[in-house]
Amino acid sequence: MHARLAMRATGRWPGYDLPVRDGASDEPVTSGPWTRRSRRVVYENPWMVVYHDEVIRPDGGAGIYGVVHFRNAASGVVVLDEADRLLLVGQHRYTLDEYSWEIPEGGVPDGETALDGARRELLEETGVAASAWQEIARVHLSNSVSDELAVLFVATGLTEGAATPDGTEDLQRRWVPFADALAMTLDGRITDAMTVVAIERLALLRALARLDEQS
Amino acid sequence: MHARLAMRATGRWPGYDLPVRDGASDEPVTSGPWTRRSRRVVYENPWMVVYHDEVIRPDGGAGIYGVVHFRNAASGVVVLDEADRLLLVGQHRYTLDEYSWEIPEGGVPDGETALDGARRELLEETGVAASAWQEIARVHLSNSVSDELAVLFVATGLTEGAATPDGTEDLQRRWVPFADALAMTLDGRITDAMTVVAIERLALLRALARLDEQS
Repeated sequence: MHARLAMRATGRWPGYDLPVRDGASDEPVTSGPWTRRSRRVVYENPWMVVYHDEVIRPDGGAGIYGVVHFRNAASGVVVLDEADRLLLVGQHRYTLDEYSWEIPEGGVPDGETALDGARRELLEETGVAASAWQEIARVHLSNSVSDELAVLFVATGLTEGAATPDGTEDLQRRWVPFADALAMTLDGRITDAMTVVAIERLALLRALARLDEQS
Repeated sequence: MHARLAMRATGRWPGYDLPVRDGASDEPVTSGPWTRRSRRVVYENPWMVVYHDEVIRPDGGAGIYGVVHFRNAASGVVVLDEADRLLLVGQHRYTLDEYSWEIPEGGVPDGETALDGARRELLEETGVAASAWQEIARVHLSNSVSDELAVLFVATGLTEGAATPDGTEDLQRRWVPFADALAMTLDGRITDAMTVVAIERLALLRALARLDEQS
């Protein structure tokens, strides 16, 4: 019998680790209509593992699959103050060679809850603590190639302290009226998918609530 | 002088190719406050190239950066019929070992416009042609690790033919009322980020337009 490829329903966090994490394997495993015939680690660093798999495709043909496994889940948070302004952080994204304004984001390692991770990253990156947290979305960012999961929150009840960003971060901070941040996602000044999903979902829920009230 | 890391403003599509694509380089290049000291290709397949870079971080410290470069941009389309139903395709996502309902999506190679790619992929995957296309969003899906760009459309004016999916695809098709598809993104039955962004942006624009009318 084939083993199952992934083990999502384990209750662990992130919970999507693939069973063969650190080495090669020639034991066939299935993923729905796919069969994995072999797996080889072709690259790894502290944040990800890249696998090269030989597979049998849904149509029965032989093929390959490159899988980017993320060691961490991603968290992001819409931090709202009492004037309905949200906190944006700006940084130069190395991968794009572009400056990017985003909600505070960070990695959540295995063993930490998404909420704890988001809380910790917010404090480190921005010095902001929040008393009320609500999860608003959970998405897979690029499921044709990776297993990266993003968990998105809204946080309120803020107290501000000093940030302690790490060396990979050279962050600007900006408090922006929610409506202005939404304008930035809608007109393309903000392109980061986690930020777009979080801000627009919150805007949508607010708009639907207002339409409900009026009907 | 340092060369610039990326060359986005070339007018080419996707236009975000990194200058050192197929080999190693030890010429230092800058990306904002980052300096790349060396680059090595650690993996490539027809869809992506993985680079291992040695860098100087924004704080001046030495570090590494793994970059997943996508050879294609990603396109996705909300296909709407005259009854305001949209087309969802279901497939087992190998990376997650999960079944996933999504808008029709596909890869757009260099040299093809996002619109042409979306149109071609829709026809191949689903057999549907559409006469009216509108771009509604453009997002970077996972900018801490990759340069993957998604371009999202709404298409109307449909004619249906026969699909010709490739061997990697084992697709179900479902026409779903727009409101039901939106419920699926909001309650987590749909987790694909491109699908969430496209459906919720369209829902948001509709809701904002209705609120405008009523005010």
